[in-house]
Amino acid sequence: MYGLELAAIFFAGISGALAAVRKNFDIFSLLLLAWVTGLGGGLMRDVLIGAVPPVGITSWRYVLTALAGGILVHFMHPRLAALRRLIIVFDAGALAMFVVIGTIKGMEYGVGPLASVFVGLFTGIGGGLVRDLLVDEAPIVLRERELYAIPATLGAMLTAATVHFDVFSPWVGAAIAFAILTMRLVSLKMNWQAPGPWQGFGRQRTGR
Amino acid sequence: MYGLELAAIFFAGISGALAAVRKNFDIFSLLLLAWVTGLGGGLMRDVLIGAVPPVGITSWRYVLTALAGGILVHFMHPRLAALRRLIIVFDAGALAMFVVIGTIKGMEYGVGPLASVFVGLFTGIGGGLVRDLLVDEAPIVLRERELYAIPATLGAMLTAATVHFDVFSPWVGAAIAFAILTMRLVSLKMNWQAPGPWQGFGRQRTGR
Amino acid sequence: MYGLELAAIFFAGISGALAAVRKNFDIFSLLLLAWVTGLGGGLMRDVLIGAVPPVGITSWRYVLTALAGGILVHFMHPRLAALRRLIIVFDAGALAMFVVIGTIKGMEYGVGPLASVFVGLFTGIGGGLVRDLLVDEAPIVLRERELYAIPATLGAMLTAATVHFDVFSPWVGAAIAFAILTMRLVSLKMNWQAPGPWQGFGRQRTGR
Repeated sequence: MYGLELAAIFFAGISGALAAVRKNFDIFSLLLLAWVTGLGGGLMRDVLIGAVPPVGITSWRYVLTALAGGILVHFMHPRLAALRRLIIVFDAGALAMFVVIGTIKGMEYGVGPLASVFVGLFTGIGGGLVRDLLVDEAPIVLRERELYAIPATLGAMLTAATVHFDVFSPWVGAAIAFAILTMRLVSLKMNWQAPGPWQGFGRQRTGR
Repeated sequence: MYGLELAAIFFAGISGALAAVRKNFDIFSLLLLAWVTGLGGGLMRDVLIGAVPPVGITSWRYVLTALAGGILVHFMHPRLAALRRLIIVFDAGALAMFVVIGTIKGMEYGVGPLASVFVGLFTGIGGGLVRDLLVDEAPIVLRERELYAIPATLGAMLTAATVHFDVFSPWVGAAIAFAILTMRLVSLKMNWQAPGPWQGFGRQRTGR
Repeated sequence: MYGLELAAIFFAGISGALAAVRKNFDIFSLLLLAWVTGLGGGLMRDVLIGAVPPVGITSWRYVLTALAGGILVHFMHPRLAALRRLIIVFDAGALAMFVVIGTIKGMEYGVGPLASVFVGLFTGIGGGLVRDLLVDEAPIVLRERELYAIPATLGAMLTAATVHFDVFSPWVGAAIAFAILTMRLVSLKMNWQAPGPWQGFGRQRTGR
């Protein structure tokens, strides 16, 4: 489970660094974005549940993992850009793992199922959210019409439920993460989109 | 008082969801914005005074109230857009109630009058601030020339003072909220504007 | 040391208020930006290390110092704009002092050297980061090619090391702050720039 978390941080760090490359930022800004994308979601979670100082600033292993993703991008970015498809898979994998891990940490801290779902969701989407705010793009979680936060929320709910009813095990966690990942990738592949503002039955769109 | 807080969350949730409709976001992003606008200010307050986990992620009643505002907008938005004027009143009402409630919570947590004024102000303006950052608009509290933060700050000061001198009662709170609301609405009606950067006496504007 | 911190808050407050003047915001928005720029970095630090309520909302002296910077700008901004060069020096001075003070506070709270470096860095760059997000500009710490976060990070590391090995004294702190300031100013003067994304050896730039 711990290895999976490091993998999630690493891939999220890559996505942050790629955003820096697109903006032509310097190497230090790239590392800062790799760090904030890899560990920002966990930082929000830890502040919200009172687990301060957050692991995102205390753990060498976590920090170096996120920075390693950034350094990889610094040297490999033309090749990684060609691997764009693979990145989308990795990014979805990071989302899936972060959500499960974040929800479990919330439950372990005893903040209750509802708050655990929220902190699970924040762990999954928080890093990317801050990354997008910093590079001045619409946050992917809001912009994206394909399913992104919906599988994350369902996964967080399922995780909280299995912990609550004491049937959680690492295998269950892995299965939920896999289900989130699958749902996200299938929605991308099939171009499933969440509905926009309701337009009524056969009425012309009037909202603006 | 508790009922008024739920009303404030509900109306703030509506304003967040309307921002999502304007951006043509999907239903989930709409709910996320309703949640963050309705409860984001209280979240900041709770993190700042150390009341973690914040009620904004632990209380079903609060969360469902904010989401209810979002769902209402999802189905009614063309009609709500026509009710724009009413929304401005509701938004001002939410600001007024949030400020009083937030300041009281600060005082109850024993953070002192100055910090209570700040957390009251954050409770009032925080949700809208995050909403505006997420949809990439200039925050209303900064952009708006009509009185917005000034009545909020005065109201927070008055609330802190009445609690400090032990003359606070729910009626006093309601009166202060009403005064904030009135000041805000009158300033909108009369087009009262706070002064911009000082231009000196009869000097040409040179700042840029 | 305490006097230096107030000076840092004052000059950071000035830079926030100048951003408000550029956007032609009203006096209250100007004061809000002065406050958030002067004290926002310390606020992040205190939330991350669990020192709540943060001094940025509890200390009259800190709050009034930041607001005094704002009021000065309100009345003097055409003259301050002419002093732009001096402002850059002051801003670099605020960065240098904030970093040293923030790192020490982290070490005193016992969060360990790594987390102390992070909170020192946040104290230095956090206020300007929030200022830039609020006025919708690319954050200076990311945008700027001249050395900004690098001297800050090195200074935070050095401060943490001297505290860790028990050789820290106010004079050492002042020397480190002075070194950060010098490194920043020399890099501006000499136009030293951190490298952008690595382009390989003699290869054409392909990243976009």
